[in-house]
Amino acid sequence: MAITTRQGFQHSLEDLQQNILRMGSIVEQTIAKSVECLARQDARMAAEVVEGDVVVDEMELQIEDQCLKLIATQQPMAKDLRKIAAGFKIITDLERMADYSVDIARTAQRILETGQPLIKPLIDIPRMAELAQVMVKQALDAYVREDTELAYTVARADDQIDMLHNQVFRELLVFMMEDPKTISQATYLLFVSRYLERIADHATNIAEEAIYLATGERKELND
Amino acid sequence: MAITTRQGFQHSLEDLQQNILRMGSIVEQTIAKSVECLARQDARMAAEVVEGDVVVDEMELQIEDQCLKLIATQQPMAKDLRKIAAGFKIITDLERMADYSVDIARTAQRILETGQPLIKPLIDIPRMAELAQVMVKQALDAYVREDTELAYTVARADDQIDMLHNQVFRELLVFMMEDPKTISQATYLLFVSRYLERIADHATNIAEEAIYLATGERKELND
Repeated sequence: MAITTRQGFQHSLEDLQQNILRMGSIVEQTIAKSVECLARQDARMAAEVVEGDVVVDEMELQIEDQCLKLIATQQPMAKDLRKIAAGFKIITDLERMADYSVDIARTAQRILETGQPLIKPLIDIPRMAELAQVMVKQALDAYVREDTELAYTVARADDQIDMLHNQVFRELLVFMMEDPKTISQATYLLFVSRYLERIADHATNIAEEAIYLATGERKELND
Repeated sequence: MAITTRQGFQHSLEDLQQNILRMGSIVEQTIAKSVECLARQDARMAAEVVEGDVVVDEMELQIEDQCLKLIATQQPMAKDLRKIAAGFKIITDLERMADYSVDIARTAQRILETGQPLIKPLIDIPRMAELAQVMVKQALDAYVREDTELAYTVARADDQIDMLHNQVFRELLVFMMEDPKTISQATYLLFVSRYLERIADHATNIAEEAIYLATGERKELND
């Protein structure tokens, strides 16, 4: 068990955080792609999202090991331990976001299988995906920099996503009531909207971790 | 930083596991209650589920601290560290299950607000909830006892839940197509079914952790 210098530890911690940021960036791209394949009705892109999930799963395991090794060999105390523990939780959130993106891509595949074109051009759903991507990036930056302000920005974006989700929900209900032929696809789109809302919730979890790390206070930003 | 005896450590580890089991048992009850309030259309019970969520959140934080303290003060190596790290992940899964139960209770509240009675007596949804509860219990036992057999039992129950979810999905689509007045409520019930399916996924995550702990192999039991 090698106890290294403070400098050596800082270096290992930075390396861990870089890996978390890298995983986050892949997850951001996955979110974007999952909604793009739906909007463009692109079967190949949908398959890519589904198959790409193993990469994220693999990264999660690697970073998890890195966290545990860092704890076991460096025996960090208090704040440092908290930072690593937060990292350990954050990668679970990232992995779940990737899973939801796979759910979206699978939904795109199911809609494609029906042969029915999109019942409407997608506007709010791509908007939600863009917002969610920004949230992931900002939440991770807030964690690395322990930036509370930025973490609260993420929480505000989450409220916006919730509003968009409610709007999509109401709009699709109207579609279904007016034309029963749209029911099946509208239901699928409802789930996509819900998945994006969940992705945003996971980004908000990361923002909560960042706030806890910076202030020692637990804030429930999700409601 | 007190390094205690091996016996002292074992005692702390058992205490941690007892707390995780306790949290699991509360989550099981929450799942049961959330579907019961929906099936019985009981507004008071729904409110209890929503308000009870703080208890689970509080337990998660306490057990999280317990895990970190155990790591920091006892510096466990290899297998012991893995067991604590698995515990750390498991409580996140439990907390998310409780969140989904709150989602179900909130959905029950929304259906109640419409004043429309249930469009059909619920059969498959309560069945899913019962299965999910058993899965939570078995998955946690598999973790504590490092029982791979039991963990695979959980994975098989997850397949059953997925089948039930698909059945509910198809049935509700038929309802909506046949009578547009059912669309709004049927959509709510679809989400409930999906939440239960997600709860089962989280139980399966716990089973995966148990298998990893016992065998060192990562199995993807969710698909």
